[in-house]
Amino acid sequence: MQLGMIGLGRMGFNMARRLIDGGHSVVGYDRAPAQVDALRAASGAGAASVEDMVAQLDAPRAVWVMIPAGPPTTQQIEALAGMLSPGDIVIDGGNSNYRDSLRHAEMLKQRGLHFLDVGVSGGVWGYTEGFCMMAGGDPQVFATVEPILKTLAPEQGYRHVGPNGAGHFAKMVHNGIEYGMMQAYAEGFEVLRAKQEFGYDLHGLAELWRHGSVVRSWLLDLAADAFGKDADLAAIKGYVADSGEGRWTVQESIDLAVAAPVITLALQMRFLSRQDESFAAKVVAALRNEFGGHAVVKTGT
Amino acid sequence: MQLGMIGLGRMGFNMARRLIDGGHSVVGYDRAPAQVDALRAASGAGAASVEDMVAQLDAPRAVWVMIPAGPPTTQQIEALAGMLSPGDIVIDGGNSNYRDSLRHAEMLKQRGLHFLDVGVSGGVWGYTEGFCMMAGGDPQVFATVEPILKTLAPEQGYRHVGPNGAGHFAKMVHNGIEYGMMQAYAEGFEVLRAKQEFGYDLHGLAELWRHGSVVRSWLLDLAADAFGKDADLAAIKGYVADSGEGRWTVQESIDLAVAAPVITLALQMRFLSRQDESFAAKVVAALRNEFGGHAVVKTGT
Amino acid sequence: MQLGMIGLGRMGFNMARRLIDGGHSVVGYDRAPAQVDALRAASGAGAASVEDMVAQLDAPRAVWVMIPAGPPTTQQIEALAGMLSPGDIVIDGGNSNYRDSLRHAEMLKQRGLHFLDVGVSGGVWGYTEGFCMMAGGDPQVFATVEPILKTLAPEQGYRHVGPNGAGHFAKMVHNGIEYGMMQAYAEGFEVLRAKQEFGYDLHGLAELWRHGSVVRSWLLDLAADAFGKDADLAAIKGYVADSGEGRWTVQESIDLAVAAPVITLALQMRFLSRQDESFAAKVVAALRNEFGGHAVVKTGT
Amino acid sequence: MQLGMIGLGRMGFNMARRLIDGGHSVVGYDRAPAQVDALRAASGAGAASVEDMVAQLDAPRAVWVMIPAGPPTTQQIEALAGMLSPGDIVIDGGNSNYRDSLRHAEMLKQRGLHFLDVGVSGGVWGYTEGFCMMAGGDPQVFATVEPILKTLAPEQGYRHVGPNGAGHFAKMVHNGIEYGMMQAYAEGFEVLRAKQEFGYDLHGLAELWRHGSVVRSWLLDLAADAFGKDADLAAIKGYVADSGEGRWTVQESIDLAVAAPVITLALQMRFLSRQDESFAAKVVAALRNEFGGHAVVKTGT
Repeated sequence: MQLGMIGLGRMGFNMARRLIDGGHSVVGYDRAPAQVDALRAASGAGAASVEDMVAQLDAPRAVWVMIPAGPPTTQQIEALAGMLSPGDIVIDGGNSNYRDSLRHAEMLKQRGLHFLDVGVSGGVWGYTEGFCMMAGGDPQVFATVEPILKTLAPEQGYRHVGPNGAGHFAKMVHNGIEYGMMQAYAEGFEVLRAKQEFGYDLHGLAELWRHGSVVRSWLLDLAADAFGKDADLAAIKGYVADSGEGRWTVQESIDLAVAAPVITLALQMRFLSRQDESFAAKVVAALRNEFGGHAVVKTGT
Repeated sequence: MQLGMIGLGRMGFNMARRLIDGGHSVVGYDRAPAQVDALRAASGAGAASVEDMVAQLDAPRAVWVMIPAGPPTTQQIEALAGMLSPGDIVIDGGNSNYRDSLRHAEMLKQRGLHFLDVGVSGGVWGYTEGFCMMAGGDPQVFATVEPILKTLAPEQGYRHVGPNGAGHFAKMVHNGIEYGMMQAYAEGFEVLRAKQEFGYDLHGLAELWRHGSVVRSWLLDLAADAFGKDADLAAIKGYVADSGEGRWTVQESIDLAVAAPVITLALQMRFLSRQDESFAAKVVAALRNEFGGHAVVKTGT
Repeated sequence: MQLGMIGLGRMGFNMARRLIDGGHSVVGYDRAPAQVDALRAASGAGAASVEDMVAQLDAPRAVWVMIPAGPPTTQQIEALAGMLSPGDIVIDGGNSNYRDSLRHAEMLKQRGLHFLDVGVSGGVWGYTEGFCMMAGGDPQVFATVEPILKTLAPEQGYRHVGPNGAGHFAKMVHNGIEYGMMQAYAEGFEVLRAKQEFGYDLHGLAELWRHGSVVRSWLLDLAADAFGKDADLAAIKGYVADSGEGRWTVQESIDLAVAAPVITLALQMRFLSRQDESFAAKVVAALRNEFGGHAVVKTGT
Repeated sequence: MQLGMIGLGRMGFNMARRLIDGGHSVVGYDRAPAQVDALRAASGAGAASVEDMVAQLDAPRAVWVMIPAGPPTTQQIEALAGMLSPGDIVIDGGNSNYRDSLRHAEMLKQRGLHFLDVGVSGGVWGYTEGFCMMAGGDPQVFATVEPILKTLAPEQGYRHVGPNGAGHFAKMVHNGIEYGMMQAYAEGFEVLRAKQEFGYDLHGLAELWRHGSVVRSWLLDLAADAFGKDADLAAIKGYVADSGEGRWTVQESIDLAVAAPVITLALQMRFLSRQDESFAAKVVAALRNEFGGHAVVKTGT
């Protein structure tokens, strides 16, 4: 089928290519003209603007928005709302907060437009392996765009998971789980490394565990790759960014009064990784000095 | 090659069967005669006692101990030490604490006996999928029993990971990671379930994530199986035992002064799952009542 | 000086009494007429309505709002805004979220009204011991109502801590710290109690620590009181409510990318105290059963 | 009464002085002769060796050991055991692990000697404020040395808390609670500091909370002192040592299957404070790069 794609970055471009490979027709737009040219080179149709893209699509249209979550996505969806016709479908495949998606769905509905919030997992590997997709919205709208989802996903790798909002909420939790899993592996590898007398080969262990162990997973496959390239991760700084979903998972868990200590700690460890020095640690050091006369380490030493 | 197997329980019996299927000769002993009979029925050789098993093996012997860790394993290895001849090999495939394994290795060495500590992962699925094995000990001893390990493991699923102790230490950390991963999934599914307005089908989501998502793993495959059997886990009590390796991982991380918050919290959540009521919660409730006049919930209500 | 007091509940009534004892003139209103009568009996002036209260006050007026945070406080402040005259002062002494206070301050400012957000700590003990107060707002407005604060507080127990919002933010963090401290004591007492062979007398220990130990505190005084009344806290259920500030502290810490693991865990332990059974624990139990054949505990057993 | 004191360091010397001030007779020994001279200058009796000290004491003797816990204390108590006479009393006032104290008690008992394990809290402030003391051992032995404890402690600041081991176990838990409380304050102050737009004066807030707030405590008094000396703790490095009791509390909680997440996290935050970089954070950064193409921060940047 025919799809408009707004955003031809790392994710959007690979999705467009996979769709084209699968026989779909993609009209793509990106604010970077080079990305549009690249899509044309990959047998897609390029658009000079969102308006141009809309004009090139046959009604009822389906437009996939694949740009940074937050204000950029909201602004783009609001702009689209003014260009589309009743019955058209907007799909947000980005990492939007599900509360935004609930608002977008409501706003579009008031104009007779349909909305699907689709959480997409798979990262840079999606082009070859397929993207795992969690779709929230009306089941009939889902059915309309199912050919697209089927091509993008690996076998059984897409699903209608609930009403609007449910797609992005599920993706949010997925990423929260991912935080916890990554931290679990990370702690384990740090303990192994700290046990210096055993001289562990972390690459070898990661490879070994990939074969038949209880902790085998795709993330472990990636860990094995990473250790294979740089056995001690010497070139990588222990500085971990976070892109929102982990924070949201913790916040939602608090709103729901559900204890999620592992996901939360995984997030907080990222915060700590980004500090040169914890002020809290200074306070504790100062207190120990006050009551116990324990020597503090002076700054600059 | 020929192997003596002490302990024909769930794990030991399946290992013996897999070895026999692979053309090895297994002389098995279990204190439950029915298990020994079952091994005979599966084309293995049965022994009436450990002494009998030792007598049936040709020197240099290899004896695999696959019984509960702790005192039972220590006593069995000590007893074996008095029956074996210099050059024989003892393999401990159980979940022994690596500190025990260091002691066992030393004790056996003083009698001219060899020792391998082999951490085994794979659980009840090992017979069909192979057991993942981390071996600690002398590389030459490892080479001697490698044919056994090769048959037991899936392709690439066994490895020499370090000196004595390193096998069981690696398995301990493996299980610690497993605790963290399981808790990460568990928290995620609880958050999803608590978001009642989305009416999630947890079985469907677990199945979906198996296909192309970042959190796909063997544990997730099992989660999908579990939700497939009992969508709300209604028949399963939220009571989680622990068998030692998680505790040891936390204790070792403390000895090494490495922060392992996720693994630790996963363990502590298990403790909490086993309490009808937390005394700590009573104390907090009492304090709130004292300073704020906040009503406490009386027991029996 | 003269003060209007809206809300004569546990906190507001005690504050009014302490002010009257200190020579101030209080015009109080509460939607429960009995509370207004009680104030009259305590030498205060009663008002039949907020309008009546406003009418009884001389301009420039100072009105203290001491009612539940959230919508009730917001609605009350909005209503007040329509009754007061430029130059009047509204003081919110409740546990409002500081973001609400920022909005209230802005709304009032547009009408020429002043606002102070005053975090109040001290609970049911405030009448006798004084209330500790953290005030946010314009320093001149603070100076105007300082006679009130001075009477309410113990010696040195009130302070201007920053612009509007800063008072309630500081109180929020104060309560977050309180969560962490309470949980720290609670865990310690649970460990002591679990060490059954030592047969600890928790009341005795709490009393002992009050005298010269590093952990002496007012909360410990209260713990000693609680254990003194009910040595094993047998009558108190381990069910701990939370009234918002702990959640907000965690959420703000996440927004600020500051790790606050102890405050967070203290909150999450409260969530767990309120569950009969953790769904997460069910998931972990199910997974252990799937991979290890570990017996699960069936519900109903 | 008469007491031998082994160890005239920061703690032991102040205890000896307080006892002398209280009319007791102290014979002190320290391996640093200058400390012995200092005791003589403070009206105590000095000993040239432990043997000399024992010789100067009248039977039945009471000897207080106040030296570093672990091997030094064990060796000293074993040496003492060879010098003392049946009926003499050994008191360990150091921060010994209670398991050591159980062993020391048993060893001494076999020689007819008595043992008290006395947990001492109060730090450098004990000389003026008194030391809080938790004593484990035989009640009659406790009664014998009670005059000493009464002088050392503030009013009501000493107590017999259980059999041998119970004194040091209680002190261990006391310190675990202390870890949790310190971290709670530290997190709170870090959150306040991170809220830069409010420009908090942390010294002022700590002082304020000392007066009437729910979180007032002696540790808060010390925090106020620390901020008073160095408002931003600029001279103190966020590097926090740990001296054992926190680790032991966590380990004991695990042995007792009691969840102590706040005490545990407080300990783990100390571990993190001592790392220049967390290897776990490197692993997480590497994984994010592998699956998401998220840029890693290269070392050296």
